Amino acid sequence: MEKFITDDFLLESDFARQLYHDYAEKLPLVDFHCHLDPAEISQDKKWDNISQVWLAADHYKWRLMRSNGVPEEYITGKASDREKFQKFAETMPMMLRNPMYHWCHLELARFFGIDDVLLSGDTAEEVWTRANEALKKLSARKCMKMCNVEAICTADDPISDLRYHREIAQSNFDVKVRPTFRPDKAFALEDHFAYIKYLEKLEVASGIEIRCFDDLLVALKHRHDYFHENGCRVSDYGVETLWHKTAFNYEIEDTFQKAITSSEKVAHDEAVAFKSAILRECAAMDADKGWVRQLHIGPMRNNNKLMFKQLGPDVGFDSIGESNYSHSLSKHLNNLNSAGKLGKTIIYNINPKDNEMVASMLGNFQDSSCPGKIQMGSAWWFMDSLDGMRRQLDALSNMSLLGRFVGMLTDSRSFLSYARHEYFRRLLCNILGGEMQRGLLPKDMKLVGSLVENVCYYNAKNYFNL
Amino acid sequence: MEKFITDDFLLESDFARQLYHDYAEKLPLVDFHCHLDPAEISQDKKWDNISQVWLAADHYKWRLMRSNGVPEEYITGKASDREKFQKFAETMPMMLRNPMYHWCHLELARFFGIDDVLLSGDTAEEVWTRANEALKKLSARKCMKMCNVEAICTADDPISDLRYHREIAQSNFDVKVRPTFRPDKAFALEDHFAYIKYLEKLEVASGIEIRCFDDLLVALKHRHDYFHENGCRVSDYGVETLWHKTAFNYEIEDTFQKAITSSEKVAHDEAVAFKSAILRECAAMDADKGWVRQLHIGPMRNNNKLMFKQLGPDVGFDSIGESNYSHSLSKHLNNLNSAGKLGKTIIYNINPKDNEMVASMLGNFQDSSCPGKIQMGSAWWFMDSLDGMRRQLDALSNMSLLGRFVGMLTDSRSFLSYARHEYFRRLLCNILGGEMQRGLLPKDMKLVGSLVENVCYYNAKNYFNL
Amino acid sequence: MEKFITDDFLLESDFARQLYHDYAEKLPLVDFHCHLDPAEISQDKKWDNISQVWLAADHYKWRLMRSNGVPEEYITGKASDREKFQKFAETMPMMLRNPMYHWCHLELARFFGIDDVLLSGDTAEEVWTRANEALKKLSARKCMKMCNVEAICTADDPISDLRYHREIAQSNFDVKVRPTFRPDKAFALEDHFAYIKYLEKLEVASGIEIRCFDDLLVALKHRHDYFHENGCRVSDYGVETLWHKTAFNYEIEDTFQKAITSSEKVAHDEAVAFKSAILRECAAMDADKGWVRQLHIGPMRNNNKLMFKQLGPDVGFDSIGESNYSHSLSKHLNNLNSAGKLGKTIIYNINPKDNEMVASMLGNFQDSSCPGKIQMGSAWWFMDSLDGMRRQLDALSNMSLLGRFVGMLTDSRSFLSYARHEYFRRLLCNILGGEMQRGLLPKDMKLVGSLVENVCYYNAKNYFNL
Repeated sequence: MEKFITDDFLLESDFARQLYHDYAEKLPLVDFHCHLDPAEISQDKKWDNISQVWLAADHYKWRLMRSNGVPEEYITGKASDREKFQKFAETMPMMLRNPMYHWCHLELARFFGIDDVLLSGDTAEEVWTRANEALKKLSARKCMKMCNVEAICTADDPISDLRYHREIAQSNFDVKVRPTFRPDKAFALEDHFAYIKYLEKLEVASGIEIRCFDDLLVALKHRHDYFHENGCRVSDYGVETLWHKTAFNYEIEDTFQKAITSSEKVAHDEAVAFKSAILRECAAMDADKGWVRQLHIGPMRNNNKLMFKQLGPDVGFDSIGESNYSHSLSKHLNNLNSAGKLGKTIIYNINPKDNEMVASMLGNFQDSSCPGKIQMGSAWWFMDSLDGMRRQLDALSNMSLLGRFVGMLTDSRSFLSYARHEYFRRLLCNILGGEMQRGLLPKDMKLVGSLVENVCYYNAKNYFNL
Repeated sequence: MEKFITDDFLLESDFARQLYHDYAEKLPLVDFHCHLDPAEISQDKKWDNISQVWLAADHYKWRLMRSNGVPEEYITGKASDREKFQKFAETMPMMLRNPMYHWCHLELARFFGIDDVLLSGDTAEEVWTRANEALKKLSARKCMKMCNVEAICTADDPISDLRYHREIAQSNFDVKVRPTFRPDKAFALEDHFAYIKYLEKLEVASGIEIRCFDDLLVALKHRHDYFHENGCRVSDYGVETLWHKTAFNYEIEDTFQKAITSSEKVAHDEAVAFKSAILRECAAMDADKGWVRQLHIGPMRNNNKLMFKQLGPDVGFDSIGESNYSHSLSKHLNNLNSAGKLGKTIIYNINPKDNEMVASMLGNFQDSSCPGKIQMGSAWWFMDSLDGMRRQLDALSNMSLLGRFVGMLTDSRSFLSYARHEYFRRLLCNILGGEMQRGLLPKDMKLVGSLVENVCYYNAKNYFNL
Repeated sequence: MEKFITDDFLLESDFARQLYHDYAEKLPLVDFHCHLDPAEISQDKKWDNISQVWLAADHYKWRLMRSNGVPEEYITGKASDREKFQKFAETMPMMLRNPMYHWCHLELARFFGIDDVLLSGDTAEEVWTRANEALKKLSARKCMKMCNVEAICTADDPISDLRYHREIAQSNFDVKVRPTFRPDKAFALEDHFAYIKYLEKLEVASGIEIRCFDDLLVALKHRHDYFHENGCRVSDYGVETLWHKTAFNYEIEDTFQKAITSSEKVAHDEAVAFKSAILRECAAMDADKGWVRQLHIGPMRNNNKLMFKQLGPDVGFDSIGESNYSHSLSKHLNNLNSAGKLGKTIIYNINPKDNEMVASMLGNFQDSSCPGKIQMGSAWWFMDSLDGMRRQLDALSNMSLLGRFVGMLTDSRSFLSYARHEYFRRLLCNILGGEMQRGLLPKDMKLVGSLVENVCYYNAKNYFNL
């Protein structure tokens, strides 16, 4: 059989190959949004076998295994690493056309040097053996250096002491590892007990006693400052929809008191107004410090309550939500803008039906403070596929300036996911090269190559200024 | 002119041609959702002319004729069969790029041997004559045998006595003809008089007097059992959106009493809660018997009230509705799952804006009871086109396991519509073959051919177990 | 470098080239929806430099410049025309894949004879000099004649005296320049002071004193008659969503009194009922006169309030809105149909998520009064791109009759935008030609060529009957 992952994988024209190999391939990575554990970087984590690095924490893979009828024992249960790998390998042939099929073979080729075999139940033993051998030479930091990573931003709760970020900064590791301020738990007032518990931790971290909504903001501001001192330049908000509901301060305070005393159930509308208020206040903090603010809009989380009770959050039971938030997004951005508090913002929509709405929204709030100030984020999570990325690129190109796009990120928990940048770069070059060949773009290699360089590296470098 | 429908129609690469001719073409059909009339199978229906088989019951064609300005007389009116055929033929050239243009020429080629002429006003007379000659050798059963049909599931109201299904089963006809339990009329409480009338029939069929909501459920359960005894293994629910509203039993009972006594108008919210309740109860019956449950979500029916008064339902005045049902679908599935009543389920969305939402929902509720337990249904009705099928396949492939997909169905009232399976198979092979050629899939014919065989036949065979 | 805009730009197959050059290229234009200023046609406007014709009124370009971080001074401010041109030229390389990149180079080629240079900061001086030289020979009327324009419809407020339309009609200019009745301001009751001011002007124009809702309708009817006498055969309604709310007459009257006396704020629901009522009444006037009614559904306007205060409306701060209006659109059309007041109607949706919903809606209300009576409008504004046009064509083709489509329009304020018809025609021919080559359409040049001619010219000519 012909090799699957070749040097020219995804590159279907001479222009595409030239763009990729001459412009994109060798550029460093600025991975401005990921979920790596900084402790593992600080300790330069190593792995005993491929299941540990591939299957131990990847809920994308778990989902696909469940879809193939694999029992939970072989997914999150007590089966051995080898058994789990077998079940995953057996699921692979069912995954044709799923991005996972590409990611896995890209990672096998790039990190393990395995590019001459397709993973399946039949080849699992061979891949297991060869991969584990190769794994002996890999570690967290080696993966990052192999991939020419220049900087990353992890996702961190405000209560984090950022100890590992500081350790890494003080070490001789020359990749910038920066935190991201992600205060989602400060929004989650629906679950009284979890919320109280979280606020207690926030009190400890900030040294602020939280008795009212203003105290909460002061505590968050304290952590925001602390994050800034520790190199943070990015925030992130994971929201189920873009809330925008105005309310009087005393109403927000009322809601907060209900939430922390559990005297009364918080109504849906009250929760929305409360969340709108924190979102606005945090946005202002971000703007004041010149940070980049990220809005990740739209997933529905923990849909399967049985499995949530068994395994907790972030284990593969989330999906794409549906809501109409064009008006609230517009008002949210407008209010910040009118108050002089709209800083650099990246809007990520999870539902592709919103691509054009979001792409067209950017232009309403651009200004001369920064080229491409308001960005549409790269396709992510369920849409992180050739199809999803192409649709995001198409919407963005048609309604805004592709040349100002800050590009790709991994959004991943795995040190092997840098292969997704390669995947994105190949796709981008293939699209542009194909359009050059078809006469849709000028056959001007310097012009198009320069756009490739900007989207793959320079735009992010300049925008985030890490 | 070159022939239009050739052996390699839609197959644009060597890989595609090989996949189709070596793997897909000769597989039997499991047409698990159609609207054929079992009486016509039992009686082995024959037709006098092509208008009878093409135009007498096909509201897809009627719609296109109306769009071309054809008067109703030539559509559902008193014009002769030959005149109606003429008007339809004249509409054909306007239909370029509409799937109907392909379907018609595929059917002309496969059933009538006419593959050397394009249908238009000018060729209508020739096609009429030749088709009617060929029609002499065709009958309902012959169409099914010609197309290698192994099993079909018709759509049947719970009040049906399934007499024809029994007759067919007892005959020497070796195609399995199974009923589908489709209780839509039990949901339609808005129209008081029609509802009362329906309940009376249900009382007769079940032998249960229906005086309260629980009686209704008992009556439905009675028919559910009866359907099971008669070979039914599939249910189907045609819903305008996915309702999910919980209510106390006494509220549902109240609503039911309003509906049957017409003492008071049923409010929208009450109707939704009522429908949610029946949907849940029927789902539990389906799960208990190990049936496959189908949810057809989203059409708006009978939009044109003038024509509804004149012609009734299902005559071409329906269209794609729009609603945000991600949250209610999630809750509906989760509630059933928590209660141990979530069986095999196929979700069909009519609005393609929901493709990704639905495709991503599947993964929330998969488990080891069956590979691919929760399915996304094939593109249907308005989306039953190359474009619509491709988009469904893309969403499904990117977010779930294409290899577990149960594939295509006709959803048709016509014995000639098996050509749509050919259409689907050609498209599937063309997509996969094209991606092999472009290096997006491994050039491994056995691997991809096996997926083709599963999607075209084996998955449905195993999933439905008819 | 190879030329970018060649004779065969966008035409990627022999069939495509033949369809374009033999069928589409030389047909006249019926531009049935534009925003040209009739005064400029009457006075045969000329321009001193390319910034005047390109940048003075084009908020599409302004938006892209803002997205590139260009200060407002160089967009709508006091910078010189040459400076503004420089900033725009510098933005061009960022615009790769945006339709503006194509439009600009098409216009440079067609109107200025500049097809050997790509516009950028480096080439700005050369293009400025050469374009300004070429501009000496151009004027409003010359642009129209160069492009073989047969008729246009401008967008006009009911208060317009249509003086320039009359002047043009009486002149020797042989292009038909017709008004469009666009009463959007009569709907905008939310802004009390602006509304009062508008009604005063409407009173003057109509000679009707407006003291109640019925007076408003009488005044509008008066202007409707006046427009008809002056050659108007088309209306247009720009609506944020498709409102459909029924109310008693006295409720509408109440709302109107609140609006004009400002005694009390008009509630959202009241405004919707009020707008539904005018929309219905105007539709009836249109139907009575046999006009074509256009519904432009869905933009969100003036999102940036700071900039709105500074620059007013229509300056580049609008975007794509999101709402679910399938049910209200269905009811709106059905009510008119039941009342015998549903005339020729073109529905334009701005959000592409609605493409299939709208395309499928058409078929509910077609009849024999006119082939293709209910139309889906061409992709517009944010969707006026190769991508957007292709998606509209796909939805329309799959769910209705492409052969009856009335085709493209400019929707533009610029005399150079006729290039967009060329753009559309090339795309259409490329799609059809490509599908002929791939065997998706018959290789019958006469059949497909005839469809091209109808969509590019004859359908609009017959449908509008200007």
